[in-house]
Formats: sequence, C-alpha cells, structure tokens
Amino acid sequence: MYGSSRALGLIADTGEPKAIHLRPAEKGKNKVVILGGGLAGLSVAYQLQQAGYHCTILEASHRLGGRNLTLRHGDFIDELGNPNFCQFDRDPNLYFNAGPARIPGHHRRLLNYCKEFSVPLQLKANSNRLAYIHDSNHFGGKPVRIGEYIADSRGFLSELVFKSVNQGDFSEEFSEEDWQKLMAYSSIFGDLNEGKYQGSGRSGSKKDRMLEHVVAKDPLKFADILTSKVGMMAALTPENYDWGEPLMEPVGGMDGVVEGFKRNINAKVKLHAQVSAIQVNEDSVDIQYRYKGKQENIQADYCFNNIPAHFMPGISNNFSAHYMNALASFKRGNLYKIAFQMKKRFWEEEGIYGGISFTDQSASQLWYPSHDINSEKGIMLGSYSWDDANNEMFASMTLQQRADEAARCGELIHPGYTSHIEAFASVPWTRMNHMMGCGAHMPADIWDEKFEVLQAAEGRHFMIGDQISHHAGWQEGAFASAEHALGVFNDMVLKA
Amino acid sequence: MYGSSRALGLIADTGEPKAIHLRPAEKGKNKVVILGGGLAGLSVAYQLQQAGYHCTILEASHRLGGRNLTLRHGDFIDELGNPNFCQFDRDPNLYFNAGPARIPGHHRRLLNYCKEFSVPLQLKANSNRLAYIHDSNHFGGKPVRIGEYIADSRGFLSELVFKSVNQGDFSEEFSEEDWQKLMAYSSIFGDLNEGKYQGSGRSGSKKDRMLEHVVAKDPLKFADILTSKVGMMAALTPENYDWGEPLMEPVGGMDGVVEGFKRNINAKVKLHAQVSAIQVNEDSVDIQYRYKGKQENIQADYCFNNIPAHFMPGISNNFSAHYMNALASFKRGNLYKIAFQMKKRFWEEEGIYGGISFTDQSASQLWYPSHDINSEKGIMLGSYSWDDANNEMFASMTLQQRADEAARCGELIHPGYTSHIEAFASVPWTRMNHMMGCGAHMPADIWDEKFEVLQAAEGRHFMIGDQISHHAGWQEGAFASAEHALGVFNDMVLKA
Repeated sequence: MYGSSRALGLIADTGEPKAIHLRPAEKGKNKVVILGGGLAGLSVAYQLQQAGYHCTILEASHRLGGRNLTLRHGDFIDELGNPNFCQFDRDPNLYFNAGPARIPGHHRRLLNYCKEFSVPLQLKANSNRLAYIHDSNHFGGKPVRIGEYIADSRGFLSELVFKSVNQGDFSEEFSEEDWQKLMAYSSIFGDLNEGKYQGSGRSGSKKDRMLEHVVAKDPLKFADILTSKVGMMAALTPENYDWGEPLMEPVGGMDGVVEGFKRNINAKVKLHAQVSAIQVNEDSVDIQYRYKGKQENIQADYCFNNIPAHFMPGISNNFSAHYMNALASFKRGNLYKIAFQMKKRFWEEEGIYGGISFTDQSASQLWYPSHDINSEKGIMLGSYSWDDANNEMFASMTLQQRADEAARCGELIHPGYTSHIEAFASVPWTRMNHMMGCGAHMPADIWDEKFEVLQAAEGRHFMIGDQISHHAGWQEGAFASAEHALGVFNDMVLKA
Repeated sequence: MYGSSRALGLIADTGEPKAIHLRPAEKGKNKVVILGGGLAGLSVAYQLQQAGYHCTILEASHRLGGRNLTLRHGDFIDELGNPNFCQFDRDPNLYFNAGPARIPGHHRRLLNYCKEFSVPLQLKANSNRLAYIHDSNHFGGKPVRIGEYIADSRGFLSELVFKSVNQGDFSEEFSEEDWQKLMAYSSIFGDLNEGKYQGSGRSGSKKDRMLEHVVAKDPLKFADILTSKVGMMAALTPENYDWGEPLMEPVGGMDGVVEGFKRNINAKVKLHAQVSAIQVNEDSVDIQYRYKGKQENIQADYCFNNIPAHFMPGISNNFSAHYMNALASFKRGNLYKIAFQMKKRFWEEEGIYGGISFTDQSASQLWYPSHDINSEKGIMLGSYSWDDANNEMFASMTLQQRADEAARCGELIHPGYTSHIEAFASVPWTRMNHMMGCGAHMPADIWDEKFEVLQAAEGRHFMIGDQISHHAGWQEGAFASAEHALGVFNDMVLKA
C-alpha cells in the first residue's frame, strides 16, 4: 500500500512510510491479541490480517477509535463524574471532532489508509487571515484581523533589514550588488515604500477595494506586534509544518477513518473489555480482562498493546523493571476541546469561512467550521489550549461553568456570540473514561533512552500508540508506531 | 440582501456592499435592455426585477456568464480560428474553470449572491507549501517545495534583523529592553538558533518526523532566495489579500454562480444577439442587433451595457466624444488558461492536495484540484501567466503546440507528467469569440479621469462590468460595477 508515495521520493519531506511485507502467519502461531482499539491497534489488526493472523481486539470503552472521537446528536460523552449526552441537533453536518481534526498532506500513512478505505476527504481551513487576534493587553484590547498582524510584522521587519543594509552593516558579507538585491527583496517581502513601511493593501483597504483605490490601514503598533504572544501564535500557525494549508478532514467527521477500519478488519472485537493483567511467557502472552462483570482471559502468540502508557502501572504484569520504568515515565497530557452548536453561522457574515481566531483569554482558540458553508447552523470549536494550568482549570469545572467561560471569551471577539449558542459539548481528555489524557510527553532528557526501550519488544509484547512516536496527539504518530512495531515483530518472526 | 455583512462592520476590511433600495418601477418607464449577459448584466437584471422592471438581455454568444466559463465534456470552446469541443471524460468532477476560479471570504457581493441562490460552496486550496517552485537558474534548477523557500527566507531575514539589533544599530529608536524583545521576536519569526538560521523543521525533516527527531534540511542558498523571481511570486501568493486562504469555489464548477442567476432572473434572454448600434435618446434608448441573420431592434427606457469596452468602437452609437474616448482607452488583457485531464492524480502521491506550483518556464503556474481528493482522475490547470509576451505566445500557437509547451513545462516539475495527460483544453481569452480579452487595464496616469467618466451615466446608458471597477478580472469587480451603476440609475429615477 505504501509503494506510490515512496516511488516519488517524499522521504526528504515527511519520512517515508515503510512498506510492510509481513511474513505469512504459521499455523499454531497466528493468534494475536491487541489491547485497545485506538488507531494504532486498528492498523495493526488490519496489517496482520493480510498476513493471515487472527486478531482479537480488547477495548475497554464502548467504542473503537480512541481519541478519534466525533460527537453528534445523542452520542454518549463518557466523562468521569460528568457523564452526558451530546445535545447537538440530529444533523449529519453538525459534528464535533473532539480529538484529531486536521490532516496535512504529508501524513502519508493516514492518507494512504483513507485512500485504501475510500474515506472521502475534503479540505479543512486552518489558517485564516480574516480571523482574529484578540489580546486584552495589546492592540487596544480589540480583535484585529490576523492578516493585519502578518502584513505589519513583515513590513516592520523588512524595514529594519532595509535600513541595516542601507547603513552598510553587512559589508563584510555583502557586495554592493548584494545590498541592492537585499533592499529590493526586503521591499517586496514587507511591501515597503522607499524603504519605509506605511501599511499594506495586503491586509485590505480602508475603502471599498472594488470601486476605489486601495488605502492601506494604519499599521498596528510595532511594540504591540513584538510583544503579543497570541499575535505571534496566530501568525506562526501556518508556518508549522503540520498546520500549513491545505489541511484536510474526512467528509462528515474524523471518525470516518475509524469506520474505514471497521469496514476492513475481520478481527474479533470485544468492547467493555478492561485488561487487568498481562503475562508475557516464552511462547505466549496471557491476558486477563474484566468483561460484563466477570474475569476472563485469553492466550495469544503475540500481544500489541495500545493502552495509554499511564494506565500500565495499574495493570498487573511481568514486564522487566526497565520496561515498566519507561512506561511509567510519561506525563499524561491534558488537552481538551469544547464545542458550541451555533444557531447562526455569524462568522461567515464577517468574511470568515473556517480557520482559527486566537485570544489571550482561557478559550485560547476558536475554530470555525469550513464545511457546509452558508448552511443555517454550525459547530464551532469554542476552546482549545496548550496551556497546562488553563487546561486543568477547564477540566475541573462543571459543564455549565465550562460553557460559560468559553462563551465569555467568544463574546470578546464576536459581540453577540452567546446569543447564538444552542448546545455545548466538552471533552477534557484527562477525565474521559478509559483514556484520561491526551498529548502525553516525557522529560526531554530521558526521552531518547525510554523511547528506545519502548520501541523494542518486551518478549512477545509490543507497545504501540501515538505515545510511542515523535508525534503524540496525531493519528500519523499512532500509525507510525504500529508500523515500527510490526517491523520489530516481523524480524522476530523471521528469526523464530 | 446586503444587510447582515454591513451590520458586522466589514467596511474596514473589504468595502461594504451598498444596500440597494431601488425605487419601484413606474408603469411606462419600466423597460430595461441589458447588453451582454456577463455577471454584471445578470446581477443588474436580478436587482431590477425586484423593483418591477422588465429586462431583456441581449447576449452575443451561445451562453450566459461571460468569462465565468466552466468547461466539461463536450462543451463548445468558441475560439476564433480554433473552434473545438472539450474532450474531458463525461464526469461531473472533471471540470475546468477557464475564467474566475477563486472566491476570497471578503468578496461579499459574490458570496451574498451564492447564499441567496443556494449555490453550494467548498474550499479551494490556493497556496500549498508542499507544491513546488521550479526556477531553471536557481536552486540547481530542481523543484523545491514552496515551504522550504518560505521558511528559509524568513530565517535569513530574521538573522539579519537579529544581527543588526545585536550590533546596536537602532540605538536611537530602541531601548535596551526593546532590543531584547526584537531579538526574541526575530528568533521566533525566523526559527533562529542563537541568532543564526540553520534550517528549520518548519519545512519538514530529513528523517521520518514520526519516528525520529526532526533534522532540518540544509537551507537553500540565500543568494538564490534573493533573486528567484518565481520563488518570490510563490511565497507572496498567500500575502495577497485576494489569495489568502481559505478561498472557495462553487461545488461542481464556478458556473454554479451563473446557474444561480439563471434560476432567479425572469429577464427575457436572447442568445446569439449581437449589438450593432446604440442610440441614446432623451426618453429612451434604441438598440439594433443582429439575430439569426436578421437585423432587429429594441427600444427601452434604460440601457445597462456589459459589453467589453474594447468592442465599443465597433458599435455605432451617439455617445459623447469624451465618453467614447474613455471607453476606447482600455487595453484588452490577454489572460489565458490551459487545462489537462490527468488519468492519475499523481500530485496527491507527492503530498499535494491542491494549490499552485510556480515555474519560470512559460507555463508559469500549475494548479492542482483540491476537490474529489483520492478519486481516479483530475483536471489540472497546466498553465496560467501574467506575462504579456508569454500570453501572446500561447494565444498564437495551435492547440497541439499549446498542449506540448505546457506539458514540457510540467515535465520539469513532475517527471512523467506527460504520460498522465488524457485530454487538453485551452482558453486564450484574446481569441474567444465575443470576448477577445480578459484582465483589461488602462494607463495609470489617465485611469482616475476615465474611470469617473465611465462610472457616470451617458444619458440613459450605464456601463457595467469588471472593467468598470478597480478589480478587473474578478467577479466581485463586476458586481461592484453593477451596484454602482444601479445607484446612479436610482438617483436618476428619483430625480425624474
């Protein structure tokens, strides 16, 4: 399945998915148990069945897919202490990707699966220069369009370069001709007028551009540009390799990926099966799990373990100390997402058709849907943050408090925001049953050592999941971990 | 129809469409003739019918919509000297927008019409950092990903800023604290490492990012970045206010806009009706036109004229000299587009899901479709340029020569390109019957004077069309011209 992208040399840009050529399963050694039905687990099941293995997936929760969770009308939101049901209207366009929500073009493993399973994809707007930066201590505390910030920051920096060159500061490195080129370049880069930045039509016009000459807006204050952290965050979004346009999403919800696997795997799936013990033997792996109030067990030839690492200390095992130590070194991530059903797509009336507004308030990010443009209602992401304290604050709130706080922030960007809210859903991953975390990380100084341990097999047991990659929190990381583990597995089988 | 966007204050960003409140038509003064069924003409027909006017549209060609032209299987391509039919497969996904192809979120008039007429919209990728820059004299003549150019150019410029600051060159303007802030800012802007640019993970990694630490690619040569015009063009694309992501397109082809008007106007439409004379009288306008081999005429109370200005000197009229002089001052634009039906979406295997590659060769731009991802085939735009000489060269070629030349250029970016080509279509607007130009312009020094003349009425005759706006070549310009003319018309009617 990975042939085509490799042939065209994506390796230099993304790391090329490895072609997985599994040795056909031998009779009597073809039983595999997969602990956890997240994407890594599902992809292992899919790959192994091609080689003739019989897989059983034990999944603790009521559904497959892990954090690939798309919420729609009536869906159960299994938050510990706050079990609730999604109140969105019954409408296939009103969905909320509470976990992963974006696919860049260089996530080849995921995109290959989408193609293989005929998961329809559409673009998803991520960066939008017409969306806002709201910084309560900058720009007069008023929302400014991201495009203004970007145009002005390019302008001011270019002016500094132009001025330096003009002063001949780089004489050692640059010839007179080079100076000229650099001045010309910085003038275009920043839209300078005789070496000065005086605003740019790149962020629109004070007057109607269709019927009058462009009149550049007054630039933002350079001091504000330099020190607005939220401004910088907004402006850098499209510079991040994983967030550069165009991004994609499955039509109808990210769980289209999960449905693709469900249509294409023949593994035996047991939901509500909570693993309590893992015993790795010389010729087998024994798993004990709780299922419908009873303790059950299964023996397999091999075990792939997609359980979040932070649960492992709570599961009996006979792992080596250094393996357990590595598993226990992860810090659970505390990402969350909050969504609102809006009765009106008011953002479209402001020229915003998708993308993200950024605020220094707790909500941090507001995402606008870019599908079903011009329809009546829409699901907005009302809050998403990378700040630990902030995330813990939201997780500790009641549902109503979360909604109120996210609405308060939205109101500062879009007056009247609250009046459009019809329904609310929140997914604080630290409190989601059977998951209890998202965006795991490990102290940088021990990362390499622990990662190497976890990438290796522990006997017939292989850890998989986004945590066992350099890209936690992304589906591509989950698939990469599975691909790597299957490579180790294959070597083991070949040697056996 | 324009209420909502105005209320939310888009005026500062886009120029707000004016609400058109036309005075109801008076009996005996309600007959309007519209010359040309381009978008300006269609929008005038739609607006006037709300006020009770009876409109007749005389259109010289075989279809409405003007340069809003979407080509599909079997469509007639009415090029003078090269009449031909579109050879694409019969497939609704295989279409080519030969005229306008992109809608930014701030083109409020067009977007309002799409909403009013329920024209379904989807995102269209325009900028893609995974697409290529190909410059035969830079970067070793090999295609480089646009993202590399952007990351490296930001890096190098930031390094210059950092260095200048460090040397204290801005001492007059900046305090010590400001310097620190500026150094911090430029470090983040360019992804510097202790003030030096050494490549950035922002354009990917030499190694598999999912399973290994990011290893930045070697930066491009700064000298190449500074002097590659095509590199600069590619990098600046998203900085242009009209080209910033997210852009949109109607699902199934840009002519969805034309279809929207057709569903919603009740004007009498005469196709193949070629205007030969316009006589403006005190109380009426007389039009003569050729229709089915005969000369016919129509008298109306008012006339809105959507005929390309460069045709006007060839049409008898009794306009004042200064009006005719203004009309005759336009230089016809020579834009063209070339498209290929590709039997395989090879670009997707390179991580490209839409957007534009840029080359210094004649093809100039290659656009990848961003709809129907992962389907079998796709229509690529194989050439589009803003260079006059280049455009004239393509227009003067035979169909086969155009295809060969565009294919040659594509091959330099995508080896094997030619082998994927199944069909070809070209639309050189200078040679398209009843249009003969696209992207009109006027010498800058006379623009304001002539524009004012053409924005005013000539008796009961009003010029409309994208030429009569500051945004020729864009649908929004056409609608703005119509809106303006209706305002002048309304004032005239109120005074009468």
